[in-house]
Amino acid sequence: MSDHQVGKIKAAIVGASGYSGEELLRLLVRHAQVEIVCLTSRQYAGRPVGDVFPRFTGLDLNFSSPSIDEIAESADVAFLALPHGVAAEFAIPLVEKGVKVIDISADFRLKSTEKYLKYYNAEHPAPDLLKQAVYGAPERRKEEIKKANLIACPGCYPTSISLPLIPLLKAKLISSEGIICSSMSGVSGAGRKVDLPFIFPECNESVRPYAVAGHRHLPEIEQELAEAAGLEDMAINFIPHLVPINRGIHSTIIAKLKEGVSADQIRQVWNDYYADAAFVRVLPAGRLADTKNVTLTNFCEIACVTDDHTGNVILSSAIDNLTKGAAGQAVQNMNIVFGFDEKAALL
Amino acid sequence: MSDHQVGKIKAAIVGASGYSGEELLRLLVRHAQVEIVCLTSRQYAGRPVGDVFPRFTGLDLNFSSPSIDEIAESADVAFLALPHGVAAEFAIPLVEKGVKVIDISADFRLKSTEKYLKYYNAEHPAPDLLKQAVYGAPERRKEEIKKANLIACPGCYPTSISLPLIPLLKAKLISSEGIICSSMSGVSGAGRKVDLPFIFPECNESVRPYAVAGHRHLPEIEQELAEAAGLEDMAINFIPHLVPINRGIHSTIIAKLKEGVSADQIRQVWNDYYADAAFVRVLPAGRLADTKNVTLTNFCEIACVTDDHTGNVILSSAIDNLTKGAAGQAVQNMNIVFGFDEKAALL
Amino acid sequence: MSDHQVGKIKAAIVGASGYSGEELLRLLVRHAQVEIVCLTSRQYAGRPVGDVFPRFTGLDLNFSSPSIDEIAESADVAFLALPHGVAAEFAIPLVEKGVKVIDISADFRLKSTEKYLKYYNAEHPAPDLLKQAVYGAPERRKEEIKKANLIACPGCYPTSISLPLIPLLKAKLISSEGIICSSMSGVSGAGRKVDLPFIFPECNESVRPYAVAGHRHLPEIEQELAEAAGLEDMAINFIPHLVPINRGIHSTIIAKLKEGVSADQIRQVWNDYYADAAFVRVLPAGRLADTKNVTLTNFCEIACVTDDHTGNVILSSAIDNLTKGAAGQAVQNMNIVFGFDEKAALL
Amino acid sequence: MSDHQVGKIKAAIVGASGYSGEELLRLLVRHAQVEIVCLTSRQYAGRPVGDVFPRFTGLDLNFSSPSIDEIAESADVAFLALPHGVAAEFAIPLVEKGVKVIDISADFRLKSTEKYLKYYNAEHPAPDLLKQAVYGAPERRKEEIKKANLIACPGCYPTSISLPLIPLLKAKLISSEGIICSSMSGVSGAGRKVDLPFIFPECNESVRPYAVAGHRHLPEIEQELAEAAGLEDMAINFIPHLVPINRGIHSTIIAKLKEGVSADQIRQVWNDYYADAAFVRVLPAGRLADTKNVTLTNFCEIACVTDDHTGNVILSSAIDNLTKGAAGQAVQNMNIVFGFDEKAALL
Repeated sequence: MSDHQVGKIKAAIVGASGYSGEELLRLLVRHAQVEIVCLTSRQYAGRPVGDVFPRFTGLDLNFSSPSIDEIAESADVAFLALPHGVAAEFAIPLVEKGVKVIDISADFRLKSTEKYLKYYNAEHPAPDLLKQAVYGAPERRKEEIKKANLIACPGCYPTSISLPLIPLLKAKLISSEGIICSSMSGVSGAGRKVDLPFIFPECNESVRPYAVAGHRHLPEIEQELAEAAGLEDMAINFIPHLVPINRGIHSTIIAKLKEGVSADQIRQVWNDYYADAAFVRVLPAGRLADTKNVTLTNFCEIACVTDDHTGNVILSSAIDNLTKGAAGQAVQNMNIVFGFDEKAALL
Repeated sequence: MSDHQVGKIKAAIVGASGYSGEELLRLLVRHAQVEIVCLTSRQYAGRPVGDVFPRFTGLDLNFSSPSIDEIAESADVAFLALPHGVAAEFAIPLVEKGVKVIDISADFRLKSTEKYLKYYNAEHPAPDLLKQAVYGAPERRKEEIKKANLIACPGCYPTSISLPLIPLLKAKLISSEGIICSSMSGVSGAGRKVDLPFIFPECNESVRPYAVAGHRHLPEIEQELAEAAGLEDMAINFIPHLVPINRGIHSTIIAKLKEGVSADQIRQVWNDYYADAAFVRVLPAGRLADTKNVTLTNFCEIACVTDDHTGNVILSSAIDNLTKGAAGQAVQNMNIVFGFDEKAALL
Repeated sequence: MSDHQVGKIKAAIVGASGYSGEELLRLLVRHAQVEIVCLTSRQYAGRPVGDVFPRFTGLDLNFSSPSIDEIAESADVAFLALPHGVAAEFAIPLVEKGVKVIDISADFRLKSTEKYLKYYNAEHPAPDLLKQAVYGAPERRKEEIKKANLIACPGCYPTSISLPLIPLLKAKLISSEGIICSSMSGVSGAGRKVDLPFIFPECNESVRPYAVAGHRHLPEIEQELAEAAGLEDMAINFIPHLVPINRGIHSTIIAKLKEGVSADQIRQVWNDYYADAAFVRVLPAGRLADTKNVTLTNFCEIACVTDDHTGNVILSSAIDNLTKGAAGQAVQNMNIVFGFDEKAALL
Repeated sequence: MSDHQVGKIKAAIVGASGYSGEELLRLLVRHAQVEIVCLTSRQYAGRPVGDVFPRFTGLDLNFSSPSIDEIAESADVAFLALPHGVAAEFAIPLVEKGVKVIDISADFRLKSTEKYLKYYNAEHPAPDLLKQAVYGAPERRKEEIKKANLIACPGCYPTSISLPLIPLLKAKLISSEGIICSSMSGVSGAGRKVDLPFIFPECNESVRPYAVAGHRHLPEIEQELAEAAGLEDMAINFIPHLVPINRGIHSTIIAKLKEGVSADQIRQVWNDYYADAAFVRVLPAGRLADTKNVTLTNFCEIACVTDDHTGNVILSSAIDNLTKGAAGQAVQNMNIVFGFDEKAALL
C-alpha cells in the first residue's frame, strides 16, 4: 500500500458506467481526502475512463473488473452504483470484510421485505443484512450514519419529497391523509439507458407521466413519511413525469393543512428542523423551487404557499437527481462516516 | 367587394402580433373557405407579416391598424387575440355591427363579474355583452356556438382540465371535492413576452411552478367543473408549472373515485361522451398523454389510471396550448358558426 | 377495388416505421387526392399505426408486411423509406410492374457506381435501373420528374446545400474551388435510432461535428454541384454537426466570390432561378436563414452576405430535414408526377 | 481590515449581475485563497445575491455600488464584468491605485486603436493604458501575465479558435490564408439580455448564424493568429451561430494543410505546445470535440481530421463560453498573477 496517498481514504466505485457513477467520479476527484482506487465495470474493464465518459478524458483511471475480495482489500469505502439485486450480492461480502458500503441502489431502502417483493418482484436478496442498513438521510439520521457499516442512500424522488414533508408531519402541521406528490424528473433519471422512449427526438418537446400508480419509489416515500407521522403505514399518490431537461427533479406536493397553520409557521418549522442541515435551503415567501437553481449542487430547495380556498398547502422542492438525489448524497454520507467536513467536495 | 374571393368568408385577426395571432395565421392561410382581410397591430402597422413572423416571409399580407368601423366593414368574423380588457372594447362595437366575434382573451369566459373583478383586478368591461357570450367549448356547447355572435374561447389550461373531468363529473364517477390539477406548460404559454424569466438560459434546464394559488384560469376551471357537477361552485387546486418546451400543456389530475368505478368504465364514459367530438382522443389502457403527440394539432388526448391504494384516479391530458388551447379551438368554433366541416384547416 | 375512393391515387409507404415514414404519413393523410393503401413494416406488421406513432392514435391504419406483388397490385405509387441496399430490392420489381417509385433512400442518387461502392461499401444493387432514375430536385428537373418512373429523392444535407449554390455556380458568380459547407442537423436526422449517442442526456446541451471527412452525402453534393458548374467533378468540404433540436438543417456555405459580384446580384440570380419554385424563399438583405422558420414546412430559405475582407460570400440556408429534406420533397415529386398542384398537402 | 480572513486575497467583482459575474461568483466562492469583498451592480445595490442569482440564495453577500476609491481600498484584485467602454473607466483608476485588474470586457484586447474604432464604433477609451495590458491567454503568455497589472481576458470565440490554430500556425503546418471558422455558441453567450430574439420560444428548435461578416471578435482572432504566423495582419472568415444550449462554444475550423502533414503530426505539435497547459485537452484520433464534455469546466478540447480529398484539415474545439471563455480564464489568470495553483477552484 506504499503507493497510496497518505492520509486519504481509498474509495471503490462499483458499477461505475452509468450516470450515478459518472457523478460520483466528478465529485470524488475533487475530494481532497479521497483516493479512487477502482472504478468497476464488467463491460468496460481495461478501458480508460475517458472512453466511457469523454468529460474525463485525460484522467488517469481505467475501468477494471476486480473480484469482491480485491475490492475489499484495496478499499476503505465502496460505493455501489449497481442495479438492485446485484448491489446486495456485493454488499454482503464487503460489509463482512469491513468495507464501509454506501449503496445507491434500492436494495436496502425498504425495511419491509414484503414491500420489496411486491414492488421489485423478487425476494429480498439479503434480509439479514437489511437490519444493519441505515437509511442515509443525513438531515434526520446523522448519528446512525456515523456508526453505519451499510448505508442505503435514499432514492431521488423520495429525497425531493421527504425533505419538505417530514418536518411538517412531525410537527403535525398537515394531515397525513390525502397527500399528493406530482414530480418531474430530467431524463438522466432514467439512467444511461439506450431505449426508444429516451432518444432525443422522443423526449425533446415532450412532457409525460409514467408509472403513475405503483412506482418503485412509492413504498420508500411512504415508509419515511409514516415514520415521521408516527404511523404504521401511509398511502399517498406519487405521480412522476419525464420532462426534457438533463438533470433535476421538481416535486409539487399538496397536503391538507391543519386549521390555522400559516406559511410563516411552516417556514419556521423548516428553519428549525434544518438549522444544522448543510444542504437544505428554505426559500422565503414569494419564491418557489426551480431545478435550475440546484443543478450540479447538493442542495434541496423547499418552498410553500398556503391556499385558503381549499385549505391545502402547496409545497415545492427541487434537487439535482444525480447529486442530492444520488451521488452527492452518497458523498455527503461518506463525509459523515469518515468524520470529514460534511460539505467536502460538495460546494 | 369585387376583389374578394367568391364563396369565402372574410376574417380579421385583431391583435395579431403574439403567438396566438401567429397560430391563427398558420391555420387560416390553409383554410380553403377563409380569406384573411386584415391582421392588426398598432406596433407593426404597415409592415409585412414576414418581418414579425419570419416563418411567413413571402406571404402577401401586411399588418395594419384599421379603425373598428373599418374592421366591421371588411370582415365577417373577427378573431380577438388581444389582452383582456382591450378585447371587450373591440367586441362591443363589432358584435353590434354584426361581425361574428371569436375572442381568445379572458374577457367573456367568466359568468361572474365578481370573479372577474377578483382575479383580473378590474371591473368587467362589458357586463351586458357577457350575457350573450357563449363559452366556446365545442364538445359541450356546439348548438349554442352555432347561434352565437360572441364566442369566448376557453383558456388553454381550462381546456386541458375540463375535457377529461367534465364527463366524469356529469356521470358522477368521481367526487367533486378534493380535485387536484398539476399542469405543465410550454413557454409559448407565457406569450411572446420579453422578460427575464423567459429568456432561453432562464427556462432551459428549468422546471418551476408559478401562481400556485389563485392563477387566473382557476375560476374559469371551477365554473365549468361546477356546472358539470350540478353545483353552484367548486374549489380545486390548480398548480401550473413552466417547462422547457415550446408548445404543449400536460395536465395531471387526481380525483377521488366513487366506490367500485373502474378505468374501463371511465374510458367508456369518455368514449360515449366524445363519440362525436372531432378532436378528443381517448387513449387505451396502458397509454398516458404526452404533449409531443398533440403539438401542432387540435387534438386533446386523455387517459386514466385508477389507484386502489388510495382510491383515487389519475387523469392525464395533453393539448397544444396554441392550437386546441387557443387558435385551433377558435378556428374550430368558426367552422361550427359558419357551417364548415368542423375539422377544416385543422388536420 | 370498389372499396377504393374515387379519383384518388393509391399510395404505399414501404418501410414506414422511421421518422421519414411518419412524416410521409403526416403529409399524405392531409392530401385530398391520395389514399394510403399500405404502410409496411416487418417489425410492426399487424399493429395499428398509433402503437408505433402515438401521434396517429385513432387513425384507422395498420402496419402490414405485404409481398412486393401485393404492393404492386394495390398501389399506384410507392414511397420507399428503407435503408439503402434494401430500397433497390423493392424498386426493381415495383418499377417493372408499373408502380411509380419515389425512393427516399440513397440507392439511386449517385450516378457513379464507383462512388456508391466507395461511400456505401457495397456494389450498387441495381446498376441498370440507376440509368432510369431521376434525381428528384423539383427546382431543376421538373420536366424529367414528370416522366419519371423512379425518382431518387435528394438527401437532406444535399438539398440544403444545392439549393443556394447551384444557381450561383451556373451563373458563375462564385468559384467552384474551395467551397466549404458547415451544416447543423437536428437529431431526427439520425433516424429513429436507439443508440447511446442519441439518447436525450447525450444530445441535450451538446454540439458536435461528425463524419467531417467523407460523409455519405458528400459525393451526392459534389455530383450536383459539378453538374451545375459544368465540370466532371468537384471537391468540397462538407462538415455536418449534430445540434439539440428535433428537426431542421442549417447550412452555412463559404465560397470565393468572383470579382465585383454583389449580394444584390446574388439575390437577383436566385430570384430569377427560383421564380417558379414553390418552396424556395430568397431572404432579403439583413436576414439570415433560421431552422425555426421552416420546421414542419417544405420551404428552403436562403440568404447571403458578402465579405469584402476576404472576398468570400457566406450563404445561409435552412430546411426541415424530414420535410423538404425527405418526405415533403417526396410528396412534392409525387404531386409533379401525377399532375397535382405542386403544393398539395404541403402548405 | 481585522475582519478579513488571514492569508486570503480580496477580490471585487465589478458589474456582477450578468452571466459572467455569476460564473465568477460560482468559481470564487470555491476558491480557498480568495475572499469576495464586493459584488457591484448599480441596479441591484443593496440586494442579497440570491435575489438576482437564485442559485446563491443563502450566500451571505449583497450587491453594492461602491465608488472606485472604495473598491481600490478594499480589493487586491478587481474583475471587470462590465460593458466595453465602461470597463476602461474603471480600469484606469484601479490600475493606478495598485489593484490588479482582470478585465473580461473587450476594452484591452485589441492592440490597434484603429481596429477598436472600426469594430466598436468608438474611440478607444484608454489608449495609454492599452500598452500595459497583457492579453491573458495563459497558454502562451504566462510569464507576462505573472507580472501584469492589467489583464485583458480573451473573448470566448477567440479562445476557442486560437487554442487549436496557434500552434499549427507557429509550426507552419497550415497556410495562414483562407482560414474559415464556423462557430456555434450557447445562448448565455448573448448575455443575460432581455430581448425578443433570446426568449425561449425564439431560440429553442432554432439554429441561426449572425454577424457573419464583421463580428467584434474577428479582429481579436486575426490579431492573435497573425502574431502566431509572424504576419502583420491576417484575414479569415469567422461565422458565429446561435444554438439552443445554455453554455458552450464549438468551433469548426478549416485550413489548408501544408503538403504531407498528417493528423498525427498535428496532434504531436499540439501535445508539445500544450505539454504544460493545465486546461487544454488534445483528443486522440477518432474523437471530435463536444461542448457537453467541457461545460462547467475550464477545459478546451481540441481535435483534428485531415481530408485528402481537398487537402484541408478540419479542426474541432469546444469550451464553456462562461468558464474558459470568460470567468474561468479570468480566475486562471488571477491564480497565475498571485502565484496560486493554476487550477485552484477550477477543477
